[in-house]
Amino acid sequence: MRPNDFVEQLRMSTAEFRPPVQSPMDTDFYKFTMGQLIHKHFPDMEVTFRIIIRDKDIPVWSVIDEEELHNSLDFAQGLRFQKTDLYYLRGIDLYDKYMFGENYLGFLKSFQLPSYQLNKTEGGFSIDFTGPWANASVWETIGLAIVSELYYRALMRKIPKHELEIVYARAMSRIYTKLETLRSRGRIRFTDFGQRRRHSFLWQEWVLGLCKEMMGEQFTGTSNTWMAFHHNLDAIGTNAHEIPMVLTAMANSEDEMRNAQYRVLELWQEMYGRGLRIFLPDTYGSAQFFENAPKWLLDWRGQRQDSGDPIVEGCRYQNWLRKNHTDPGKRVTIFSDGLDVGSMIRIDSFFGDDHPHPFGWGTLLMNDFTNCHTDNVNFRPFSMACKVISANGRPCVKLSNNIKKATGPKEEIERYTRIFGNEERVSTDVMV
Amino acid sequence: MRPNDFVEQLRMSTAEFRPPVQSPMDTDFYKFTMGQLIHKHFPDMEVTFRIIIRDKDIPVWSVIDEEELHNSLDFAQGLRFQKTDLYYLRGIDLYDKYMFGENYLGFLKSFQLPSYQLNKTEGGFSIDFTGPWANASVWETIGLAIVSELYYRALMRKIPKHELEIVYARAMSRIYTKLETLRSRGRIRFTDFGQRRRHSFLWQEWVLGLCKEMMGEQFTGTSNTWMAFHHNLDAIGTNAHEIPMVLTAMANSEDEMRNAQYRVLELWQEMYGRGLRIFLPDTYGSAQFFENAPKWLLDWRGQRQDSGDPIVEGCRYQNWLRKNHTDPGKRVTIFSDGLDVGSMIRIDSFFGDDHPHPFGWGTLLMNDFTNCHTDNVNFRPFSMACKVISANGRPCVKLSNNIKKATGPKEEIERYTRIFGNEERVSTDVMV
Repeated sequence: MRPNDFVEQLRMSTAEFRPPVQSPMDTDFYKFTMGQLIHKHFPDMEVTFRIIIRDKDIPVWSVIDEEELHNSLDFAQGLRFQKTDLYYLRGIDLYDKYMFGENYLGFLKSFQLPSYQLNKTEGGFSIDFTGPWANASVWETIGLAIVSELYYRALMRKIPKHELEIVYARAMSRIYTKLETLRSRGRIRFTDFGQRRRHSFLWQEWVLGLCKEMMGEQFTGTSNTWMAFHHNLDAIGTNAHEIPMVLTAMANSEDEMRNAQYRVLELWQEMYGRGLRIFLPDTYGSAQFFENAPKWLLDWRGQRQDSGDPIVEGCRYQNWLRKNHTDPGKRVTIFSDGLDVGSMIRIDSFFGDDHPHPFGWGTLLMNDFTNCHTDNVNFRPFSMACKVISANGRPCVKLSNNIKKATGPKEEIERYTRIFGNEERVSTDVMV
Repeated sequence: MRPNDFVEQLRMSTAEFRPPVQSPMDTDFYKFTMGQLIHKHFPDMEVTFRIIIRDKDIPVWSVIDEEELHNSLDFAQGLRFQKTDLYYLRGIDLYDKYMFGENYLGFLKSFQLPSYQLNKTEGGFSIDFTGPWANASVWETIGLAIVSELYYRALMRKIPKHELEIVYARAMSRIYTKLETLRSRGRIRFTDFGQRRRHSFLWQEWVLGLCKEMMGEQFTGTSNTWMAFHHNLDAIGTNAHEIPMVLTAMANSEDEMRNAQYRVLELWQEMYGRGLRIFLPDTYGSAQFFENAPKWLLDWRGQRQDSGDPIVEGCRYQNWLRKNHTDPGKRVTIFSDGLDVGSMIRIDSFFGDDHPHPFGWGTLLMNDFTNCHTDNVNFRPFSMACKVISANGRPCVKLSNNIKKATGPKEEIERYTRIFGNEERVSTDVMV
């Protein structure tokens, strides 16, 4: 694809309606691995997800065209799985053979996204998705990808054609330089985790193509199911905070609350084999998680690190493993928190060959346009998330290792902090 | 796609090398259903397939560019299944769930086409494919599609650009008119069977798109696995003459020879459920087939009619069913012998609602360019087949209901005719 094509496609998108998400497969693979568990164990749970813009300095809501947003969300709601999508999911044997059972595939056959509520607020909009958990959950990365692409599309509409070509030329050159740098560090392995905050669908597709051509075994796949399917890549993903958040919200005692984060993982290993056994320790802080972690977790393949200082968090896991006579060289930490080339190199240098440390590289792989247009400071990526906020009427809370990543009502965050402790929690600005 | 695109693509194909077949999935689905049976029961059988041009008046071999043919066949030999191809095959549940077992999928994982022998003969070339049966068999529709596309490509290279646009405009208009006619006959159902003698890959893709948009439930799928996969269509196909031909060649007595055509079907129903239980009665003549057919075949879903007069052959099956107290309204005849709109309407009028009669429409759906260019009479489709000619050193023979469709050495055809009889065999020119 020549740089020009992005421009032509973008200009066409201003003329005719091009929904940013055009398939329910254009979502993170973990939505399906989690979805099957949710569908089996919690078919009656009603939840609300909400898109939250953490970044206060970016005028997202005033830039986005409201009608286009409505149209794009409506279009997504009309999407259905095609039979070939379901053949793919039934046939995938990357982790376990027949990992998706017929009950869940039957559910997907008639799947649709529940309706959304677009509410005007003082700062702009908020978007809520309410419905059965296994349905509403799928909005997460789809809703985010729509907001992200419409935001950049609206910004770029104001830029004349030749300048737009420069914008893409600069962004292409930047990502190329990043990949060249990584290529000189052959031990670094990364997977694309960038769907949710991507510049656009087309851009993600182009960058993936570049990774595939340039990076050989250093490039290990993508979290985006559509891209994995259509570009013959490994579909990567396991689980996320939403499951412990909902289970904890439903708990009826403080003991039950503290136990929910492990209960999730029991259910998980009943359903999935070793390839998918990656735990996420930070929903209520990794320190308390490891302090009380059951011994069977020592056998799991590894952890995913999504908040706190990556080196501290990697060491915390290593120390727990060593204390329990388990070799950290045989376990992995998947780093996935706002990575870029510099942080990957820093982490790689620290852990070296002692502890495998694959990277889930998201926003700064799929959306680094900062300063690509001279006059426009608003091309930088911004921090945005789509989180479960309530389950069967009860508020849901995440604390994380970084209090700035916490979500939930203020008084609930305080109550949770009291219950789970505030040990070793940091406060760091969230850039992406 | 605008008409112009065909022209641009075609012109590009004269500048850079564009292999007509670019995926091992770009082949008929029956190659996989048969392939699994062959792989399970006859892993050690060595066979030769040969491309035969039945049509003597078309200068195929002198038109085709020999180097391009070599390059295209070499390219096909280098093809491998992608992991997503195998996910699709594992996950397809159109007939039976998990219809392809892990043994066969494992075989496909390391599959490659065996080498070919391109021999200069008096009239031009012949192409032989020799190797293990489950491998060599896959050459059939791939080899044919390559020869077909290279022939038309070479013809069209000689036509100036604006005239080429007319050629495509006429062909588009013709197929559109055909589909309009069929739309007025709502009972007619057809599947695309045209891969092997298609004008080109791009043209097949375009015509399929048109069928999908125009024909609703009248259009029931495609035999082309790649197209089914990538365009969310039903993949249609069951079995072909090669299996009875090889089994009969291996038989060691005349009784065993006459029985082989039923033995194939026993093996078939051990492997596949009702959706795939369609038999092909004409390998050695349908009259003798039904005369000695075992009663369990009454339960099969239907027959495929591939030679002889379609109405006679449909009635032959109906009569056999009625004589055995089976309702022909509950069984189907899939017609697939050189169909076009006229013959489909004639067959549909005859059988009406008494006997379901879906159509497998091939060459004249995917390659009707006759008279689309005023000066060039050679655009018409021509009769060409790729048949198994020997198995473990023994010659293979097909008689068919039409002696002009017979294949095999002359003296063997005579011997087979003596053994199977010549009852009710016709002699009709084969156009496609």
